[in-house]
Amino acid sequence: MSNPSNPGRRIRLGMVGGGQGAFIGAVHRIAARLDDRYELVAGALSSKPDVAAASAAELFIAPDRSYDSFETMAKAEAAREDGMDVCAIVTPNHVHFPATMAMLNAGIHVICDKPLCLTVDEAEQIAAKVRETGLLFALTHNYTAYPMVREARKMVADGKLGDIRLVQVEYPQGWMATRVEDTDNKQAAWRSDPAKAGMGGALGDIGTHAHNLAEFVTGLEISELCADVDALVPGRKLDDNVQILLRYNNGARGMLWASQVAVGHENGLRLRVYGDKGGIEWAQEHPNHLHFRPLDGRPELMTRGGAGIGAEGMRGVRVPPGHPEGYLEGFANLYTDFADQLNAHISGTKPDAGSLLVPGVVEGLKGMKFVEAVVRSGRDGAVWVKM
Amino acid sequence: MSNPSNPGRRIRLGMVGGGQGAFIGAVHRIAARLDDRYELVAGALSSKPDVAAASAAELFIAPDRSYDSFETMAKAEAAREDGMDVCAIVTPNHVHFPATMAMLNAGIHVICDKPLCLTVDEAEQIAAKVRETGLLFALTHNYTAYPMVREARKMVADGKLGDIRLVQVEYPQGWMATRVEDTDNKQAAWRSDPAKAGMGGALGDIGTHAHNLAEFVTGLEISELCADVDALVPGRKLDDNVQILLRYNNGARGMLWASQVAVGHENGLRLRVYGDKGGIEWAQEHPNHLHFRPLDGRPELMTRGGAGIGAEGMRGVRVPPGHPEGYLEGFANLYTDFADQLNAHISGTKPDAGSLLVPGVVEGLKGMKFVEAVVRSGRDGAVWVKM
Amino acid sequence: MSNPSNPGRRIRLGMVGGGQGAFIGAVHRIAARLDDRYELVAGALSSKPDVAAASAAELFIAPDRSYDSFETMAKAEAAREDGMDVCAIVTPNHVHFPATMAMLNAGIHVICDKPLCLTVDEAEQIAAKVRETGLLFALTHNYTAYPMVREARKMVADGKLGDIRLVQVEYPQGWMATRVEDTDNKQAAWRSDPAKAGMGGALGDIGTHAHNLAEFVTGLEISELCADVDALVPGRKLDDNVQILLRYNNGARGMLWASQVAVGHENGLRLRVYGDKGGIEWAQEHPNHLHFRPLDGRPELMTRGGAGIGAEGMRGVRVPPGHPEGYLEGFANLYTDFADQLNAHISGTKPDAGSLLVPGVVEGLKGMKFVEAVVRSGRDGAVWVKM
Amino acid sequence: MSNPSNPGRRIRLGMVGGGQGAFIGAVHRIAARLDDRYELVAGALSSKPDVAAASAAELFIAPDRSYDSFETMAKAEAAREDGMDVCAIVTPNHVHFPATMAMLNAGIHVICDKPLCLTVDEAEQIAAKVRETGLLFALTHNYTAYPMVREARKMVADGKLGDIRLVQVEYPQGWMATRVEDTDNKQAAWRSDPAKAGMGGALGDIGTHAHNLAEFVTGLEISELCADVDALVPGRKLDDNVQILLRYNNGARGMLWASQVAVGHENGLRLRVYGDKGGIEWAQEHPNHLHFRPLDGRPELMTRGGAGIGAEGMRGVRVPPGHPEGYLEGFANLYTDFADQLNAHISGTKPDAGSLLVPGVVEGLKGMKFVEAVVRSGRDGAVWVKM
Repeated sequence: MSNPSNPGRRIRLGMVGGGQGAFIGAVHRIAARLDDRYELVAGALSSKPDVAAASAAELFIAPDRSYDSFETMAKAEAAREDGMDVCAIVTPNHVHFPATMAMLNAGIHVICDKPLCLTVDEAEQIAAKVRETGLLFALTHNYTAYPMVREARKMVADGKLGDIRLVQVEYPQGWMATRVEDTDNKQAAWRSDPAKAGMGGALGDIGTHAHNLAEFVTGLEISELCADVDALVPGRKLDDNVQILLRYNNGARGMLWASQVAVGHENGLRLRVYGDKGGIEWAQEHPNHLHFRPLDGRPELMTRGGAGIGAEGMRGVRVPPGHPEGYLEGFANLYTDFADQLNAHISGTKPDAGSLLVPGVVEGLKGMKFVEAVVRSGRDGAVWVKM
Repeated sequence: MSNPSNPGRRIRLGMVGGGQGAFIGAVHRIAARLDDRYELVAGALSSKPDVAAASAAELFIAPDRSYDSFETMAKAEAAREDGMDVCAIVTPNHVHFPATMAMLNAGIHVICDKPLCLTVDEAEQIAAKVRETGLLFALTHNYTAYPMVREARKMVADGKLGDIRLVQVEYPQGWMATRVEDTDNKQAAWRSDPAKAGMGGALGDIGTHAHNLAEFVTGLEISELCADVDALVPGRKLDDNVQILLRYNNGARGMLWASQVAVGHENGLRLRVYGDKGGIEWAQEHPNHLHFRPLDGRPELMTRGGAGIGAEGMRGVRVPPGHPEGYLEGFANLYTDFADQLNAHISGTKPDAGSLLVPGVVEGLKGMKFVEAVVRSGRDGAVWVKM
Repeated sequence: MSNPSNPGRRIRLGMVGGGQGAFIGAVHRIAARLDDRYELVAGALSSKPDVAAASAAELFIAPDRSYDSFETMAKAEAAREDGMDVCAIVTPNHVHFPATMAMLNAGIHVICDKPLCLTVDEAEQIAAKVRETGLLFALTHNYTAYPMVREARKMVADGKLGDIRLVQVEYPQGWMATRVEDTDNKQAAWRSDPAKAGMGGALGDIGTHAHNLAEFVTGLEISELCADVDALVPGRKLDDNVQILLRYNNGARGMLWASQVAVGHENGLRLRVYGDKGGIEWAQEHPNHLHFRPLDGRPELMTRGGAGIGAEGMRGVRVPPGHPEGYLEGFANLYTDFADQLNAHISGTKPDAGSLLVPGVVEGLKGMKFVEAVVRSGRDGAVWVKM
Repeated sequence: MSNPSNPGRRIRLGMVGGGQGAFIGAVHRIAARLDDRYELVAGALSSKPDVAAASAAELFIAPDRSYDSFETMAKAEAAREDGMDVCAIVTPNHVHFPATMAMLNAGIHVICDKPLCLTVDEAEQIAAKVRETGLLFALTHNYTAYPMVREARKMVADGKLGDIRLVQVEYPQGWMATRVEDTDNKQAAWRSDPAKAGMGGALGDIGTHAHNLAEFVTGLEISELCADVDALVPGRKLDDNVQILLRYNNGARGMLWASQVAVGHENGLRLRVYGDKGGIEWAQEHPNHLHFRPLDGRPELMTRGGAGIGAEGMRGVRVPPGHPEGYLEGFANLYTDFADQLNAHISGTKPDAGSLLVPGVVEGLKGMKFVEAVVRSGRDGAVWVKM
């Protein structure tokens, strides 16, 4: 139903991180492959040389394009005629900054997992470098790319909800309700290690998604916030639960809850927005549905690809209503849209407007400012902090 | 399936408020009637004499027991051999205090709608009077009397959830999303009038239910809170939206949201509690279901009257699982349990332990302290306030 | 929100069956009491004299109006100035016919539980007697009295669904998945005993509800059917599962499934109707919701008392949307509407049109013809049988 | 979380059908690509040469491997050293037989969309040819490859449900509720044309999925059936609604409903199975969930990748619980498992047992026998037909 255009050639993709045993790297690769817009040509897949080589072989990467470090890769690929166009950075957070800077300095576009980096200072350096080089940068806030989330954004923008009064966003998970970081759970280990994850635990890992999703859909920005930031599992080094009161720049009120100790929840990102003309509700675990509740009228069930969905909500739709698309398809929408941007950049043409919805360095910087503000509020006893 | 015992005779019930055009009075009468434990014998149903008389006639109240004021009724009924045992007070909030005091002073037991009164000071007077007289007092926090809420309470008490870490409670409604108080909506008019409703709008009307429900189920008490209190509909005299960060006395964290401007919600009271061994979720609009999510295991659907429900959760169950009971049955459970208390009091016996779950003056006082704390926090810019 | 009119006096109600240990009798009593339109004045509550007397005492029935048999009660009450107006018959099926005939012969109106009786021949005798006496007769197909079911009926009648093409109705329960009739389960015992239940097991007990509901909502009649009728639990004397192909008199197709061995279902009555302009879905376990899916447009959630509900759907609504009403309220709607009919009859006035939706002897006769046709089809190897 | 093994090289895939404007061809290509086990090297993508060439170019197929007919492709590819290993046949039904036979005759493995072909006779020829050649054959009954469907199958096989008594399967869609075949809807046009679709309309298109799913999960086979087969939209040339009573070879009873005129349904495939120890329910539109209702105990929610899922249910799981996988991932599981079979075949090793769950020619032949039996039953007035 979509993705019609022949892009000329596939984008050449490299990857930092994502070797054997990793999680999000495999997701990025599927996302890149789904619409056949990329080919994976190079990788610095692990800091351990043998893991890097074995991983590359499994992924059909030529041995001479499997590198031991991202620095080496950046230089070598930049020097090749057929060098990679763009690099996906899928490491723990602390590598985002140096790897991104290395790529940008080598003239290579970047797709980076979230959060952008460890500090606002790093984020501003990245933002400046992107501006300076004119290179393209994508931040994989993948939840924004579900078609029904984009439809929700368009509805708000078109005034279907009227003036926004309330934003309720939550992201409960339960997988860290015990000290999993003390087991051999690699995902938990780095996420609860300040040296690798940064200032935020649940805050950085999923709170940033919730923050970004709410701003993406509403077009509003937080003006001030008040946050309780806690490690509810004794002995944990970073927060596993944040509860935040929000005030938006238009006067709207909000609440944000992100938790990794909410036993029984899997990946419960959920957004509710209320205006003076209507409300919407969307839940990530049932992403093909959007609930619209108009002020005067009955609640309506909007479905991906279904009745009355506009161009924004149809973008990226691959199969008809009732044939559920999920997490990987949403993630792939970011990759495919960014491929449109990259192709336009390469060919010197103007990208399709829809492709520009991919979050970038601006959203990354906002996310880091959000993290810092929340940490500061929490540290000072949950006081109000201006953004 | 329940309500086995013959109580000897029906409890004689009087009522203040609840005349033609009222809402909650009719609910109280159905609740009293459902299990046939009361007979309505007297009323001061309206401050307008003609409405009072017409209402009484419709309700089969003898003309000589329809009164023009609660003061008159209290005296006259106290003087009768067959005078009423208990008086239900179902007026707007500002009448709760004087009517309650009049009844208690006349030696008549009281069932009072929530919130208890207008101020902590009034609440303390009522509490003192109840202690002094030894009369029985019920506060109709009806949501606590749904069987699955009581089952939830028992599960927490039995440690099925382990140590409680998180309490998320919300109560969104949408019916006041416009200036309905400027129409002929009697319910909206008094609820947004500080002289009749008191300090809180949505806060007093539904926020107190949310607060009470969370404490009822968890057995915890709030130690401090931080609240944003707003009238999001311009020109409204009382709050229509409150968003609160909670800290409980055991260190648990919580959030409470009550709103009457969340367009599209009907009566969305919902409670989620998470401990270190499991989580539960209950929603008022589907009250026959309780979701239990154990730390190690699959989510389980618990149903009213269904598999594995204990004595607490079976109390008040009238029909088998799958035959939904609702709002009126929950409300009736309070009345029936209070009838057990009253019969025991009258006969000088010990009431059944289960009947003592009916909220009373202690909960009413807590509710008023909660309202005052929230108002104070909001007024001072959403600062932390100790309870 | 409803039940405004003062009926002059309460209807005097008697009851056959429903003594201690019974189930549906207590339901009838609550239903009669809910809107305060009846007073229970007499009973032949059990065929065992001591149980009858003890049950009557519990229910505040005067000792001299507790009878040992329905025959005695019919005569004695008919002779009283203040004799009962109407008799509720809440026994196992085999008593419906003689008790109904006794009451009608004594000039007493009847409310009878379903199914009407044991055979088509009995049903025709009752129907003739009702016509002959001019007395009123109600059959408690209670599921038709949920407000959203009546709204559904009105939608079909108003053509909102266009021409009806498909009717899918199912009624799965699981409580008889084992040989519960061999335990001390009184409800299971008589339901699986042909002498007491009649020709049908699940068929008579719940299949008749499903059949009636579908005809009530669609206004269609079955012209022929083909039924597999089975006792899937070995040794059971009556069917516990029926699966039926339906052809309606307008050419529509349908399926009906009723089972008491569908493990895990509680009381899963569910109706779906599809026309050439739209479809609807209603499920008894969530009776406050009706799903409407128009041909051109988005699925809409219709709620009891909510946006766009007409007079038919508002009839019997007691509390606002979001305050769930359930099984007992639906049942009570039948009683209250029948009270309107009875009051009109007594006062010689014309009853309100809405009150005439209460199923009666016509529906009872149809139900018995349905049972006989299904049994015949099943017995002959699941062949097509014309109605 | 899965897909660990490095297969040595990607399988070389060709495709018949699936050119511009087609639907299911794109699905097959994504399914093949998702786990990177195939490369698309050749195609006879359209019977129109210009469409074939343009489609091939868009898909990065070399011009010399884009063919004008499947006959030409079969011969040319069979002659190449690097010729395709397997051919996906994604045309309307009437081409399945000749294209499959051409490929098998050329020594090329086949992946064919369902239903297998037009008649039982064709199906038997294909089955014989597969046996004779020893080539591998996959039939894309994709719904069997959802992880929770495979988990359901394992639960039945392990006796978790006990002896199976009841099978309720339905597949409602609404997209053909009007004469869409008279518009420019290419999908509707061939599906309602007997020359292209075969004997069955909704029956062949979706009824075969429902039939296959029920047999896949239960391991039972239908012994006889009775079917009402109708075109409910006037003038339609093939059925758009079938309603079937089923008797299984172990004595279990069942019902199957498939409809393309059930207004408001998108892709509502749903299976419920009940045994004497428990029941399960699965719905395609929420494929990550499986509801298990044990005889003694509470209903449990089983989630893809969640608590207590065994090896069968984990096979093909790519992302953690709560990160929804959908239609494309399910489809891809068939491709990936078949790649395992193909790699094993190529390397002369034994394939992994899990990979053998892919439906093949046996299921295809059963499907055609089912279609013929249903058509025969319907034509003769909905009589019982033995399988």
